[in-house]
Amino acid sequence: MPMEKPLILACNDDGITATGLQALVNVAKKFGTVVVVAPDSPQSGMGHAISVGKPLRLYEEHFSGKKLGWACSGTPVDCVKLATGVLLKRKPDLLISGINHGSNSSISVVYSGTMSAAMEGAIEGIPSIGFSLCNHSHAADFTGAAAYAEKIIEAALANPMPTGTLLNVNIPDIPLDQIKGIKITRQAIGRWVEEFDERKDPYGQNYYWLTGRFSLDDDGEDTDEWALANNYVSLCPVQFDLTAHHAIGPLHKWDLKL
Amino acid sequence: MPMEKPLILACNDDGITATGLQALVNVAKKFGTVVVVAPDSPQSGMGHAISVGKPLRLYEEHFSGKKLGWACSGTPVDCVKLATGVLLKRKPDLLISGINHGSNSSISVVYSGTMSAAMEGAIEGIPSIGFSLCNHSHAADFTGAAAYAEKIIEAALANPMPTGTLLNVNIPDIPLDQIKGIKITRQAIGRWVEEFDERKDPYGQNYYWLTGRFSLDDDGEDTDEWALANNYVSLCPVQFDLTAHHAIGPLHKWDLKL
Repeated sequence: MPMEKPLILACNDDGITATGLQALVNVAKKFGTVVVVAPDSPQSGMGHAISVGKPLRLYEEHFSGKKLGWACSGTPVDCVKLATGVLLKRKPDLLISGINHGSNSSISVVYSGTMSAAMEGAIEGIPSIGFSLCNHSHAADFTGAAAYAEKIIEAALANPMPTGTLLNVNIPDIPLDQIKGIKITRQAIGRWVEEFDERKDPYGQNYYWLTGRFSLDDDGEDTDEWALANNYVSLCPVQFDLTAHHAIGPLHKWDLKL
Repeated sequence: MPMEKPLILACNDDGITATGLQALVNVAKKFGTVVVVAPDSPQSGMGHAISVGKPLRLYEEHFSGKKLGWACSGTPVDCVKLATGVLLKRKPDLLISGINHGSNSSISVVYSGTMSAAMEGAIEGIPSIGFSLCNHSHAADFTGAAAYAEKIIEAALANPMPTGTLLNVNIPDIPLDQIKGIKITRQAIGRWVEEFDERKDPYGQNYYWLTGRFSLDDDGEDTDEWALANNYVSLCPVQFDLTAHHAIGPLHKWDLKL
């Protein structure tokens, strides 16, 4: 732990007023100075989007006379960039994102604004963790999630983060005393199968609502999905080096001479 | 190659009228039936964003009496989901994305709409390739890029794509006869260092333009950045299993018991 009080940057993708963010901030305050920079509107599914070609706003947000933090008009990744590039005088000791309302296990990690904020932190060399609770409701109970977030934040401040790594923490939506502990996992193989809801507008033109169901194609007992289904918190290390090293050998056999 | 004519899905993030997309479609037509589904407006930097909570439009786009393809009101990933979920009767044999106006090497892969469209294809089990030319100009010369795209499309139709892999192809902005060939590479370690341009609007409120410079922190000669700097086309295999397997061992040493 650094000599001075740890500086902790908190963000999310559900927006600055989300219950999950407040739950996470309350936990993080036990460990240091928490600065909140979060989107001013919901940004779920934003992935690693950044705002190109449009300016960003950043302003202090209050609720009921209490300062919530800094609200940003952009994406979760914009929030991190503005926090480290404009607001903060030094690099944070930790970045925490969430607690997301809804899981970010398996392939959902690539669509998740929560996880992309954490990935942006990791790219900038900040130990970074995304937290998600497997419940989409605005009124979800974050008690169990907060208890495990506290343990994981404590550990992340006490240990060096492995190089090029951020953490994806998913918490099952069950009472705290039913959670069996933390499993270190890998990302389960799975995907979202789209089912579009096609409708006609009042002018006779088609439009589409994106829906879908998750298809798990992995029966491993070391995955994030297995952990959640078996009442464990999943702690999955994630990297931003996307190189498919296993593919380099096979690709050398392709005829690529012009 | 399949018995019937290959079905090739083409998309991008610069929008359906972009010169780079037209250059790529012209090449791909030599190999099969090309269906274009691309954003109706520029979507650079969109990462793996999807449209959550808002409906999508999909309509045929024409220019000067010629059908360009299907324009979509959403993100590059939305385009792929709508193409495979609504428009196409069977799974494409190949997905091509680009040719992007600007490079997507090193860490830019995580911000790139072009590469996210290709990643979405790969997640859906379609052999998928993103192409980018290292020139942001609308009036860039795609001659060299098109020649190499043709060679790589030919190879991708003739060989199985390694499991869980998509390809990130970056082409240097030099004349075709100066390109030395194709290097199979890994993603260089690097990041964008933000430099925000802070301004005041006519009402006295601050706003910020996101700018930045690329910082390369990798002197390897097997990287995409090295290939491009040395006049090679970079072909980098990318994966969507983001698990940081190297971090699992060290994480087991953390105290994570509640």
